[in-house]
Amino acid sequence: MEIISHEKPPGLFARMWLYLKSLPEKSKANVVEVVNKVIKLGKDDPRRITHSIKVGLALTMVSIFYYYQPLYDNFGVSAMWAVMTVVVVFEFSVGATLGKGLNRGLATLVAGGLGVGAHHLASLSGEIGEPILLGFFVFIQAAASTFIRFFPTIKARYDYGLLIFILTFSLISVSGFRDDEILELAHKRLSTVIIGGSACIIISILICPVWAGQDLHNLIATNLEKLGKFLEGFGNEYFKTLEDGESSNKDEKSFMQEYKSALNSKSREESLANFARWEPGHGRFQFRHPWQRYLKIGNLTRQCAYRIDALNGYLNTEIQAAPEIKSKIQEACTEMSLESGRALKELTLAIKKTSQQPITSADTHIKNAKSAAKNLNTLLKSGIWEDCDLLTVVPVATVASLLIDVVNCTEKVAESAYELASAANFESIDSAVSTEKPRSGQCGAEKSNADCPHVVITVSELTPAAAMADRSLKA
Amino acid sequence: MEIISHEKPPGLFARMWLYLKSLPEKSKANVVEVVNKVIKLGKDDPRRITHSIKVGLALTMVSIFYYYQPLYDNFGVSAMWAVMTVVVVFEFSVGATLGKGLNRGLATLVAGGLGVGAHHLASLSGEIGEPILLGFFVFIQAAASTFIRFFPTIKARYDYGLLIFILTFSLISVSGFRDDEILELAHKRLSTVIIGGSACIIISILICPVWAGQDLHNLIATNLEKLGKFLEGFGNEYFKTLEDGESSNKDEKSFMQEYKSALNSKSREESLANFARWEPGHGRFQFRHPWQRYLKIGNLTRQCAYRIDALNGYLNTEIQAAPEIKSKIQEACTEMSLESGRALKELTLAIKKTSQQPITSADTHIKNAKSAAKNLNTLLKSGIWEDCDLLTVVPVATVASLLIDVVNCTEKVAESAYELASAANFESIDSAVSTEKPRSGQCGAEKSNADCPHVVITVSELTPAAAMADRSLKA
Repeated sequence: MEIISHEKPPGLFARMWLYLKSLPEKSKANVVEVVNKVIKLGKDDPRRITHSIKVGLALTMVSIFYYYQPLYDNFGVSAMWAVMTVVVVFEFSVGATLGKGLNRGLATLVAGGLGVGAHHLASLSGEIGEPILLGFFVFIQAAASTFIRFFPTIKARYDYGLLIFILTFSLISVSGFRDDEILELAHKRLSTVIIGGSACIIISILICPVWAGQDLHNLIATNLEKLGKFLEGFGNEYFKTLEDGESSNKDEKSFMQEYKSALNSKSREESLANFARWEPGHGRFQFRHPWQRYLKIGNLTRQCAYRIDALNGYLNTEIQAAPEIKSKIQEACTEMSLESGRALKELTLAIKKTSQQPITSADTHIKNAKSAAKNLNTLLKSGIWEDCDLLTVVPVATVASLLIDVVNCTEKVAESAYELASAANFESIDSAVSTEKPRSGQCGAEKSNADCPHVVITVSELTPAAAMADRSLKA
Repeated sequence: MEIISHEKPPGLFARMWLYLKSLPEKSKANVVEVVNKVIKLGKDDPRRITHSIKVGLALTMVSIFYYYQPLYDNFGVSAMWAVMTVVVVFEFSVGATLGKGLNRGLATLVAGGLGVGAHHLASLSGEIGEPILLGFFVFIQAAASTFIRFFPTIKARYDYGLLIFILTFSLISVSGFRDDEILELAHKRLSTVIIGGSACIIISILICPVWAGQDLHNLIATNLEKLGKFLEGFGNEYFKTLEDGESSNKDEKSFMQEYKSALNSKSREESLANFARWEPGHGRFQFRHPWQRYLKIGNLTRQCAYRIDALNGYLNTEIQAAPEIKSKIQEACTEMSLESGRALKELTLAIKKTSQQPITSADTHIKNAKSAAKNLNTLLKSGIWEDCDLLTVVPVATVASLLIDVVNCTEKVAESAYELASAANFESIDSAVSTEKPRSGQCGAEKSNADCPHVVITVSELTPAAAMADRSLKA
């Protein structure tokens, strides 16, 4: 085949041959790529592999049950409902599985009862009236249930239940069997659904359980940590870039990546909180753990992340403010950024360890950040910049202002973390110490600072922006 | 019952009587509340009512089909698959219904074939080997399919198909029938699924269709419009607050509400785009309409919304910058805000009307916004603020800086809207005019402005923040 490498353009046959020759290589490359993707997917979260095995196990168990003749004779075709239940109900987390299982079981029970009633009613109305009445019943319940599914609160928690309600009611009411047969059908369907659902729930809880509550807990903590990382690095990054040039570009990009995932985690947080409500007590979480408070922290975290996104715009851009201006506020800004970053990391620790102690350390860091803001305040008042071109001051002033916003946001996050810690009974260091120092509600943004000796200045004297964040959250 | 209103505390009997007396009133109030909620839900989107009726209709049709004896004799118990298919497949939009229907049909076909094969294979291996082999097959396919469902691209489009694949394969392979019976079962299941699926798709398309593509189109346009509204109002609102005091508070709150919905619309946009891919051509959209470009505009809109969220923090706060400082930059800032708002509104119009003309008007507005930014630039350079306290300048400078960011974001949105207009063949005013003035790609943020006579200055000279937005989007 050396001919082809000459200048002459290759003919059709030669091209086909080349294509065929490259085929095994190409498909090998494709296979390698897919295998790499599979490995990455498994490595990113090994629970995915366990989950797949658990589903296989549950399904095999129930299938064998379906297959064996003695059992089959007992339940008949209805036994397949057990298989269906497993396939449809088994979800990744225990909460989702429990929610779906209970929804399915309850909806089957209620719809089965109503379906039998509807069927009986219709059968009383004679041969002509029966199909008309049955059709009418099915239409009314399907339309009504479908409409109810649009209610946001019902959609979040009982959507699947309503689906199964429509399904079971229609199946049972129009099944065309005699009354005694229909009761048997309803009974069989219910028992097989319970068998399938129980298999899912038992396997889901006993073998390497995946708790949605734990995931929500970790997600909230991780998002806070990511913001903390950004803030800890931001001061150095912003004030160093001119000296170090492009060298720090790579690090900065990894910061960007990390905090960005916090910007769009709202829907994930909400669905995890919905699943977590179904879960029994596990590990450090009790049955009625205050999951809603996590959502509040999540919302405040996002408020902070929006400010950080704006800050991020001032990092590593080609045009920078003059270094002499930057150097004047460097200390105060770096301190503010670093201390709020540390505060967020302490809050992360508090959530991760379910301990109140790091919240106290976070308070200290917030206090430091605030006194840095006060220093900045004094610095600005002293008029040290009067000889500078105002044009070059604007970007630096914006960064300072956004940082002050971030400090305020951090304080709000700390406040809501404290509320969570109280509501969820995080372990306190020493109850005597914790009662000595009242915190929740008294040191909030809208409250007087007189009760809180650790709050040195009101940052909002300088920038009132973050005060809006709270209001807008409630809106 | 006048006794109770005397000073004496009412006894148990009296309290019970009061409770019973108030019961009808209370339940009446509850009923009124629920009815009001239902009316609001229907009024917010009347298509919900149509959808509910459509589901009822489809289900009644298929149920009657299941009920009638001659048809029932033909399909037997399998006829219930048609009812199930309708309940499970009928979704709100045509795209979602088509996607689920095709997924279900195809998965049933493939899994049915493989299930028959697996059953046949297993039956060859003798009485002891059969259940073991069957269990093994079920386990392997369930675990593998469950794992595949974790791939993000597959989860977005074929999640339901894989679910049905697991279901059908398990049901058919372990059904315990003889080979000829199993072929009949597979055939019946497939035909009934096709009947149910077709009923859904036909009713979904023929009766008041809800197109996910149209919804995505409108969502993107509405989000842009909301940002535009905020920006149009922001200048006046920010510079007026001191004079008018609290009176404008209400208006400001409605602005806040509106742009905020754009902050968290990412997941909704993505699911709509996924549904839209399944939809045939409808109205102004062809089969392969560039839905992905809408997502790009959506992402840029959110970038802009984050800046606006930061700006919003400076509205109507108790502590304001001194009016003499504000008045100096009022004109330039109001102009920037107003013109970017107008540009966004023109882009909204361009998308809503699928016409290229408003994009040209948007260009003019962006040009105006940029020259306002240039004026601000000159103003800052002229040093008119040198006698002011720098402390009071910081909030105003931040607002100015954020507004410049917003202008840059707006330009990027215009750029991506132009790309959409080209890719989707929006109607151009006059092809001669549009070829005269090259735009796409040549006036981008990273390109030279030499080719674009309408770009007067590079705003990024002043604030380079928005340049990052683009980079971070790609990350």
